[in-house]
Amino acid sequence: MSIIDERVALLRSLLEKKQLDAWVINGTDPHQSEYVCPRWRTRAWISGFTGSAGTVVITKDEALLWVDSRYFIQAQQQIEGSGFVMMKVDTPSYPDPYTYLKEHLDNGAKVGFDETTLTVFAKAALEQTFADSLVLVPQADLLDRIWLDRPAVPSQPVVDLPVEIAGFSRIQKLTMVRLAMVQKGADYTLVSSLDDIAWLTNLRGSDVSYTPVFLSYLLVGKDQAWLFTDPSRFSSDLLAAVQEDFTVLDYQQVVSTIEQTIAHDSVVYYNPEKINLALYEAMKGRKAVTGRDFTTDLKASKNDTELEGLRRAHLLDGVALVNFLSRLDRTRGSYTEIELSDLLKQQRLRNPDCIGESFAPISGWAEHGAMCHYSATEESNKVVQGNGLLVLDTGGMYTFGLTDVTRTILFGTPTEEQKRDYTLVLKGNLALASMRFPEGTTGYQLDILARQFLWKQGMSYFHGTGHGIGFRLSVHEGPQVISPKPVAVPLKKGMVVSDEPGIYKEGRHGIRIENIVAVREDIQTEFGQFYSFEVLTLCPFERDLIEVSLLSAEEKAMVDSYHRWVYEELKDLVDLEALEYLKQATARL
Amino acid sequence: MSIIDERVALLRSLLEKKQLDAWVINGTDPHQSEYVCPRWRTRAWISGFTGSAGTVVITKDEALLWVDSRYFIQAQQQIEGSGFVMMKVDTPSYPDPYTYLKEHLDNGAKVGFDETTLTVFAKAALEQTFADSLVLVPQADLLDRIWLDRPAVPSQPVVDLPVEIAGFSRIQKLTMVRLAMVQKGADYTLVSSLDDIAWLTNLRGSDVSYTPVFLSYLLVGKDQAWLFTDPSRFSSDLLAAVQEDFTVLDYQQVVSTIEQTIAHDSVVYYNPEKINLALYEAMKGRKAVTGRDFTTDLKASKNDTELEGLRRAHLLDGVALVNFLSRLDRTRGSYTEIELSDLLKQQRLRNPDCIGESFAPISGWAEHGAMCHYSATEESNKVVQGNGLLVLDTGGMYTFGLTDVTRTILFGTPTEEQKRDYTLVLKGNLALASMRFPEGTTGYQLDILARQFLWKQGMSYFHGTGHGIGFRLSVHEGPQVISPKPVAVPLKKGMVVSDEPGIYKEGRHGIRIENIVAVREDIQTEFGQFYSFEVLTLCPFERDLIEVSLLSAEEKAMVDSYHRWVYEELKDLVDLEALEYLKQATARL
Repeated sequence: MSIIDERVALLRSLLEKKQLDAWVINGTDPHQSEYVCPRWRTRAWISGFTGSAGTVVITKDEALLWVDSRYFIQAQQQIEGSGFVMMKVDTPSYPDPYTYLKEHLDNGAKVGFDETTLTVFAKAALEQTFADSLVLVPQADLLDRIWLDRPAVPSQPVVDLPVEIAGFSRIQKLTMVRLAMVQKGADYTLVSSLDDIAWLTNLRGSDVSYTPVFLSYLLVGKDQAWLFTDPSRFSSDLLAAVQEDFTVLDYQQVVSTIEQTIAHDSVVYYNPEKINLALYEAMKGRKAVTGRDFTTDLKASKNDTELEGLRRAHLLDGVALVNFLSRLDRTRGSYTEIELSDLLKQQRLRNPDCIGESFAPISGWAEHGAMCHYSATEESNKVVQGNGLLVLDTGGMYTFGLTDVTRTILFGTPTEEQKRDYTLVLKGNLALASMRFPEGTTGYQLDILARQFLWKQGMSYFHGTGHGIGFRLSVHEGPQVISPKPVAVPLKKGMVVSDEPGIYKEGRHGIRIENIVAVREDIQTEFGQFYSFEVLTLCPFERDLIEVSLLSAEEKAMVDSYHRWVYEELKDLVDLEALEYLKQATARL
Repeated sequence: MSIIDERVALLRSLLEKKQLDAWVINGTDPHQSEYVCPRWRTRAWISGFTGSAGTVVITKDEALLWVDSRYFIQAQQQIEGSGFVMMKVDTPSYPDPYTYLKEHLDNGAKVGFDETTLTVFAKAALEQTFADSLVLVPQADLLDRIWLDRPAVPSQPVVDLPVEIAGFSRIQKLTMVRLAMVQKGADYTLVSSLDDIAWLTNLRGSDVSYTPVFLSYLLVGKDQAWLFTDPSRFSSDLLAAVQEDFTVLDYQQVVSTIEQTIAHDSVVYYNPEKINLALYEAMKGRKAVTGRDFTTDLKASKNDTELEGLRRAHLLDGVALVNFLSRLDRTRGSYTEIELSDLLKQQRLRNPDCIGESFAPISGWAEHGAMCHYSATEESNKVVQGNGLLVLDTGGMYTFGLTDVTRTILFGTPTEEQKRDYTLVLKGNLALASMRFPEGTTGYQLDILARQFLWKQGMSYFHGTGHGIGFRLSVHEGPQVISPKPVAVPLKKGMVVSDEPGIYKEGRHGIRIENIVAVREDIQTEFGQFYSFEVLTLCPFERDLIEVSLLSAEEKAMVDSYHRWVYEELKDLVDLEALEYLKQATARL
């Protein structure tokens, strides 16, 4: 019996004891985090599958793992030899997990899951569809009883983000939230998403890879605010400073504090798409007003200090990128994918204000570049040599902001197709970046600007064009996106998004060009206030991949003007031996 | 006491008898029609206000009329001298009708309204917001008791749309609906929207101005289908033909038939945004599956026969337009706005296949053109003379399809601003019409293509870019639109939409250019199936308003190629004396 089968057997005996017919593990944490810390790698522990998304279902007789197309091969390999069966997400002949349970269990079957990993919204959606056939039984996580060496809730040190960097102090931000509470008639607001808490408290941690958050909950009342996180992780000075505005209690005290503190005639504001069922149960009986967390909208529009920090971060990042690019010998060199992203990382880390990478780098050579979500492993790691394209999507975390940049780098000689594809992607990037748009415009309206030139040639890409980014926080941050999905969030002054069209030709090549842009106020006319984008990213495009004949005069001027700006900003900062490369890379087309 | 005040007093005495605190009249009909027949001009009868939208609220002490900004002036004039007070829609200091009632009536106040004019969806939405404070009491229309000469349910003759024109026979269409029913597990589907019924039955009427529908309900079962409409309106031959597929019962029999025919264990499919509360009550106890009417999606994608008819209709319309344009003396002529739309109507009616206009024409001279929804009346009717722009938005109803076309016509000499504005609108029209897009693309994704050039100059327009059109039916037909609103309906082969960007400068001029386009299959590539638009409208753009220096070479070629096509198609069909105008109007830029 494999270790996996043993774990499944242990869980099954608990199911019997608890009179449950199934247990579902969605693999998230109590905070709906994009990246989870080891304690909540529940899916991997029970199934052996280490991918970043998937659902496990254990019944009396079956162990099933749902994964999406990115993971069909990896999952099949990793569950090999165990009793697990792979199920395919969004594939016609495969039902989704709950439909499967409905079809395979008796009517009224009891389906259990960890109450801290399902949101109020998700449970309501499940009940709307499955109330007739399945009984959902949220409860304390059964894995706690059988995962004996389960990692603890992490408690890495927490550091202060000074107001000189954050722009607003803790109490100023608390005041903004309290003003929003008044407008919604709320006495309290409960926040569980970690980047919202980090933003509001001006604190940063390292509990999760790349994203500098710390495990915590937050409750804001009219006069008092509670931060639930291990107090021992603060220096005594910082704890004293934080306690001026927040009562710091242990992470585990959130439920009892809610129950004891919030009077039953109080109104609580929360986001049902973020708040888990354990918190929801604790709040029961109070009047609820729901919506997006106030902090989500407040932090989305970067303040002037944050924007200044982001500009500096992008300047330093540009230096690292140009130093890196100038050192590559792209006609005769030979590197692995991982070596290349490591080299760039080292260039970034030369500056003391760089803390590390802002996300796991994507370094995809040739056909690997055609896999949008490729992440090089020791096994897949390709040698980059000969003719071809490298998609390098990386970012730096700096003291005063993060970066996220993709450049498609030519090695050797390009084909006509590669040049045309690169130029079409570039045209899309420029069209979006140079748009002017009226107040109220959403990302879904702008998205096509980046796709139009590819579409005209019968090509397309199957990801969004842009995501919001956090300030020295998460590389993916909402609520705004630039995507075909109808996310009705208007772009507002100070919002920062990526502009990253691409093209992916299976087995051949991938191309992506990503700049970060910030929404700024533009002209005001009789038709209202207009906005436009300020480009933050400083790194030359790949001029040998540009087919100039496909650019309009206006587009050519835009490339030249961008390159002139990149040159002027970086020329005194890059290594002396990189200057010649910078000059050539930014010369007029 | 005015006649209006007398009517309000009569209604108030009924309110007292019925123990109601308020009565709400939204002015729609039982079918949620865009244009209503005289019987349901309830708002006008009780208030004197004749506009196309507005809500009346009568309480014991007050008579209120809510209208939107289009009607502020007209409504104030029309309620002058009565006890009515005007309320402004979407204006900060004015609550909406139900919020007003909540604020001004006691808690638990009873609000009555005609049960046939509120949909299931609308009632649910009201209850979600006002359940705490107001009790909604749908019932038979109180106006029936006091509006002694209320017009009857219209019963104009109904005519057959032969399969040679409709493309599919009644039984073929019924089969399509029944296949869709099977997929949804439905035993019945109930349809109340008039254009859906006209499409499914291949019948056309004239109960409502412009839109050739007939008052009716439709119930489709697995083996039998019921059409509820006055049987005496059919010729005996047509009645016999229709009765091969439908049981024809009187309009008033719909409720009792539903109650008696649909078994209680049946599943009924319906659209809660269309079905009124009287029908909903009749279906109570049956299991409901809800969604858009099957017919709505089926009729949206025009079949090949319908498309062929639409092409012919647009050809005939192009002949009428060019004959009309060639007769105008635009440097010295003098016409009124109404005379001009009448002249065009007469040109259309010269062809025996033209039945009439497809909607009330918009003929707006100079500053009237800057009012999007302007409709000339005897009072407003301006004389068109001197220098200026006329916005002429009209359409013809032909035996085999309808048209909807807007041209902005220059009289005299244009200003630089007029030429630039016209050219920017034209560029938007061309950019949308020439787009290629992959399967699944929605109208909200494409919308910005028509706006982008205006936005870049700090201009915008505040209406959608395009609406769907019906086949010899409603000029506005969903579900697809080209609009910034996140209506997640993909554009499919055969869908027909308008492409009508514009610019409206208050007090100065308006510009709109509208062509009708049909979605057609384009190339298939490794990225999937692509679609593009076929332009149906045949009418020259206004060349003296085109600032050629603002067009790209590609755009210039598009205008030339469109004009060449218009010339080739129309040259043998227009009046001999119009040929010279056509030649000049379509000459190369």
